[in-house]
Amino acid sequence: MVQTPTEDTAALPKVPTPTLERLTTYLRCLVDLGASGVRTISSAQIEEHAGVSAAQFRKDLSYFGEFGKPGVGYQVGELENRIARILQLHKLQPILLVGAGNLGSALASYPGLEEHKFHIVALFDTDPEKIGKRVLGMDIIEFSRLGEINEVLQARIAILAVPASAAQAAADSAIQSGVRALLNFAPTPLKVPAGVVVRHVSFLQELAVLSYHLTETEKRGQ
Amino acid sequence: MVQTPTEDTAALPKVPTPTLERLTTYLRCLVDLGASGVRTISSAQIEEHAGVSAAQFRKDLSYFGEFGKPGVGYQVGELENRIARILQLHKLQPILLVGAGNLGSALASYPGLEEHKFHIVALFDTDPEKIGKRVLGMDIIEFSRLGEINEVLQARIAILAVPASAAQAAADSAIQSGVRALLNFAPTPLKVPAGVVVRHVSFLQELAVLSYHLTETEKRGQ
Repeated sequence: MVQTPTEDTAALPKVPTPTLERLTTYLRCLVDLGASGVRTISSAQIEEHAGVSAAQFRKDLSYFGEFGKPGVGYQVGELENRIARILQLHKLQPILLVGAGNLGSALASYPGLEEHKFHIVALFDTDPEKIGKRVLGMDIIEFSRLGEINEVLQARIAILAVPASAAQAAADSAIQSGVRALLNFAPTPLKVPAGVVVRHVSFLQELAVLSYHLTETEKRGQ
Repeated sequence: MVQTPTEDTAALPKVPTPTLERLTTYLRCLVDLGASGVRTISSAQIEEHAGVSAAQFRKDLSYFGEFGKPGVGYQVGELENRIARILQLHKLQPILLVGAGNLGSALASYPGLEEHKFHIVALFDTDPEKIGKRVLGMDIIEFSRLGEINEVLQARIAILAVPASAAQAAADSAIQSGVRALLNFAPTPLKVPAGVVVRHVSFLQELAVLSYHLTETEKRGQ
């Protein structure tokens, strides 16, 4: 289904990825604050709860229009709904998960997925020993059936939790079945057609960036 | 141990995180190319292998000084060594891993860790049923012993693969034992003293960013 632009996101400048990442942090804070009965908040309170500066918070929101009232602050419920709409978290999103190893199992049981309306609807693997076994109430399905299954499920997002050697084939099958967004955990780049979005999560990359900053911090501390 | 500045990283402007992330991609390409017997490469060849534009590649390197020769290109081995030094991947880095669940097990067996000289030296958990069991040749150790164990191991990096409710205690213990860099997989912010670097990996955040870009792509395709 092609989305129609909403007031939040139509004709706006390109949003930096770190801003989008921080939106999910704000959203989690707002959900928590709302659950504690808080109705309005200031950017200073966001700073305290989210660990992001008040100035950064206001700058992040500025990409998406007008938020909050000077001297009054932000309505918790309203801000929560608008951020959820920006990130398309206001409607259920079915997701295919390819790879039922340790990582796939960890992802399937990741806390908060359902709360954010991400719903893993099918779990695939190529290992004959795994097929038919159950993870969190889902049968593990033979990978070759992905196309046929997604004809019914119509998921647009797939998570690839497979070895590097299997990642391109997994991506190809998923895209062939109608998937348009891939979260790739395999340590390998993917070739995808235009119109398909890929995001890589590389633990090595995360550790390397951490390693760099650790050294920089130590130098400054000299 | 406090690092001394190297020619690559001393007194240079703040490097954007995406640049650091791409350095690990270049490094992987260079290792692969070197293994195939390639001795020199152009930025155009990097573009082909790494999926990053030649212009971006040159800009990323420019943060760290002079690289390559006009008309000749880059020496594969030399560039590999310099990038590894920038990311501090030229020396073995011991790492503590807290959490021996599915995610911790997936991380412990993540391919390429050792190749990049990241060495997981101890694995901790609080679950009495797990203590003493082995994952990839390592005993799972009771979490309360982290301080005592790290007196010997002197790791500066810890990976937290624990539930949100356990993350702050895990961080506190690790920092108390001398850890100065945390890779946090728990979906919760951490309070850490100045001089400690934290990097969060949130699967929800990754999915939310993907979800946003999927919608943007679909809008452009209208």
